[in-house]
Amino acid sequence: MYAQVFYATAFTSQSPKEVTVLKDCLFCIDDNGIIDRIVHPEDSDYTAILNTYKDNDAFEHIAEGSYLLPGFVDLHIHASQWAQAGTALDIPLHDWLSTYTFPSEAKFADVDYAKMVYEDVVDTLLANGTTTALYFATVHKEASVLLADICAKRGQRGLVGKVVMDLHEECPDFYRDLDTQMALKDTEDFILKVKEIAKTAKQGVYPVVTPRFIPTCSDEVLEGLGALAAKYDTHIQSHCSESDWAHQHVQQRFGKNDAQALHDFGLLQDKSVMAHSNFLSDEDAELFAETGSAIAHCPISNAYFANSVIPIAHFAKMGVDIGLGSDISGGFSPSLYDNSRQAVMSSRMLEDGVNSRVSPEERGVSNSRITIAEAFHLVTAGGGASLSLPIGRLKEGYAWDVQRIDTQIATAKLPLFDTAEPLLDVFQKMMYLVRPENIRDVWVQGQHVHSRK
Amino acid sequence: MYAQVFYATAFTSQSPKEVTVLKDCLFCIDDNGIIDRIVHPEDSDYTAILNTYKDNDAFEHIAEGSYLLPGFVDLHIHASQWAQAGTALDIPLHDWLSTYTFPSEAKFADVDYAKMVYEDVVDTLLANGTTTALYFATVHKEASVLLADICAKRGQRGLVGKVVMDLHEECPDFYRDLDTQMALKDTEDFILKVKEIAKTAKQGVYPVVTPRFIPTCSDEVLEGLGALAAKYDTHIQSHCSESDWAHQHVQQRFGKNDAQALHDFGLLQDKSVMAHSNFLSDEDAELFAETGSAIAHCPISNAYFANSVIPIAHFAKMGVDIGLGSDISGGFSPSLYDNSRQAVMSSRMLEDGVNSRVSPEERGVSNSRITIAEAFHLVTAGGGASLSLPIGRLKEGYAWDVQRIDTQIATAKLPLFDTAEPLLDVFQKMMYLVRPENIRDVWVQGQHVHSRK
Ligand SMILES: [Zn+2]
Ligand SMILES: [Zn+2]
Repeated sequence: MYAQVFYATAFTSQSPKEVTVLKDCLFCIDDNGIIDRIVHPEDSDYTAILNTYKDNDAFEHIAEGSYLLPGFVDLHIHASQWAQAGTALDIPLHDWLSTYTFPSEAKFADVDYAKMVYEDVVDTLLANGTTTALYFATVHKEASVLLADICAKRGQRGLVGKVVMDLHEECPDFYRDLDTQMALKDTEDFILKVKEIAKTAKQGVYPVVTPRFIPTCSDEVLEGLGALAAKYDTHIQSHCSESDWAHQHVQQRFGKNDAQALHDFGLLQDKSVMAHSNFLSDEDAELFAETGSAIAHCPISNAYFANSVIPIAHFAKMGVDIGLGSDISGGFSPSLYDNSRQAVMSSRMLEDGVNSRVSPEERGVSNSRITIAEAFHLVTAGGGASLSLPIGRLKEGYAWDVQRIDTQIATAKLPLFDTAEPLLDVFQKMMYLVRPENIRDVWVQGQHVHSRK
Repeated sequence: MYAQVFYATAFTSQSPKEVTVLKDCLFCIDDNGIIDRIVHPEDSDYTAILNTYKDNDAFEHIAEGSYLLPGFVDLHIHASQWAQAGTALDIPLHDWLSTYTFPSEAKFADVDYAKMVYEDVVDTLLANGTTTALYFATVHKEASVLLADICAKRGQRGLVGKVVMDLHEECPDFYRDLDTQMALKDTEDFILKVKEIAKTAKQGVYPVVTPRFIPTCSDEVLEGLGALAAKYDTHIQSHCSESDWAHQHVQQRFGKNDAQALHDFGLLQDKSVMAHSNFLSDEDAELFAETGSAIAHCPISNAYFANSVIPIAHFAKMGVDIGLGSDISGGFSPSLYDNSRQAVMSSRMLEDGVNSRVSPEERGVSNSRITIAEAFHLVTAGGGASLSLPIGRLKEGYAWDVQRIDTQIATAKLPLFDTAEPLLDVFQKMMYLVRPENIRDVWVQGQHVHSRK
């Protein structure tokens, strides 16, 4: 009847502030990798189902000391920049782009090189518990298709964009679309090719319309991309109001904010995800909420390049969908655990303020903090809602995307000394202390895609 | 002639901003675990020394893809709080102390429990590349001696303090020193016992005079502790001006800042290390510089409990010794890599400011940022200078405290795709991306104290 049944203790986000413990439940998964039923010990047919499956190949018992969490959703990552992660973070954004990043992305004209880096980044993300990722590739059509193909083959739910950047004034000759028409044609080809690949991938791979950011794109290309997204009903991603510079640049060009400009080009809709968005005004945030556009909050990267902490609690309260992004390599870490921790810390720093020479009353922005439970919500359910996909929750009708966390392995034991430790404390220790070593198994849509023995 | 010779490529901090690459050098270590000589390939006797040792048991070749870094120095960690690391960070400091931390520390009256937690924290720190740690234990004399003993046996350079907190108004009955006299007597006994243990530990273990912080200590005990530190020439540690509350509390009690009050009790001297110190005035910082007192900067913990980012670049410029502390469990991570990364990020957030609704000119504090090279300086050479010990540098006369980082192991490979990658970029990738898995061997004063196979 069920394709798989897991006996496990698991955690899922019930609401932004509330984590639910699913203790000793039976997770019944259908052929398509979807959670058909979650059976609790107090349910009347619990014992019957347990007895039916327990000696069956389809049954998996997650032993004590191990717990299941939903797979994490990375809403913003430049797959190609994995090759330079952790370097050059001490230089200004403009130099970082022109001296390091553009030359580094230009190498992806070589598909052999692309294959090496992309296979490694997909494997690295899976090993970090990231089951879904919304990727920027590069301008190169062929290598971008390759990334979608690698996601399909490796079993990761990949949403992949061929990057568009056609403005000659703002892009180096060695790294940009040839011209506007070519950018649009390549994007359309790319969409069709990825839709073809998607047929072979149970977990789903998706093409994403991807203007890099307004400063590198012509009006014509932005309009064309909006039309392509509508024509093929694709996801859309870009950068929005990331830094003082980007925010002001768009204001000067259009006399309006990034959000409004993107909207006017047809680029804000339910399946849009905008990275950073630190400088959204309240009107911009309302536009996000109305159109269903989501924010990819990238807390590590923002510490380097966004000149501010985004008021995430405030925007969440306004009804905007929000998830987390690693933003490799503006952020150095491929781990969304690291980013969840930083999301909490950055929110505390916004609330308390940073300058000790200013009085406490004037230093920070009250009610800005989020808890680790809220960060967990962002990185799971929030990511799913942002992408409008049934992922990120352990709930009937959702995909079986999970990671098994072993808290007891000798080389990476969590500090659990009290056998009566409340499970919600164990949850907090996992969120704050898990490393890839603790992530022993990962499933995406019911498929076992990563294991460490 | 030499006890050990290592052939390796290593990195050491030359000055706060400058990292030196020691490529293919021979590190010649004497019987006492001290670096006697570093021989460079261009030195005239390089080949002769290499030939003398290369087939010898005393010779170790650190293969390509692995690099040596100095062991890290943790200037502030509550060993007992390891049991609660990662929990309860969402509640205010006062509740955190009274509801979680004091009851948790009180358990260390039981030495069996203490042994379990202390062995685990010492092993965990070594596995994270921390070769020297300045520990707060608890008020319990016996368990505190045990911690020093565990450091001695495990080969870590431990500086350990029995915590003093004798003020009945501020400390719970179930967790404090019985009275002032007992606090001083226990401290003196503790000092003598640890000095006895130190005789068996090549790497050094040291007793540390440890008033928890002024709010929990009587005037009499603070004065007595200053006298004991002078009598036995010990290190001193405490918390100083951590938060708005602590800073104001001391002002109200003494009409002066923490730093001045500590100084008047004889607690600021060359071997003093004060945790946090976020709210030092410039006069306080001058007092630190004059007395040789050091700041233990705890960037992760500060995001939760210090209401601000300490202006580390400013205090460093004033000549204050500064190192890094994990502050387990105000900080969640036992890794000083994590804390180095946070030190950089927090400094960027202080420089740029956090509130996006404020104009860029008014948002931050200019010239506050530090680079990853400066964080590396803090966590190695800065830690050594803070403790007035010859550690934290790969330099003649310094202890051979090193960690071997393998950048190539399959499960934790760093993103190195270009064989011609400059070594200083490899260094940055290590600082930003190393996890305990990459730390394959650790030596303290020439002794091999940790390995992963
Ligand atoms: Zn980005
Ligand atoms: Zn502390």
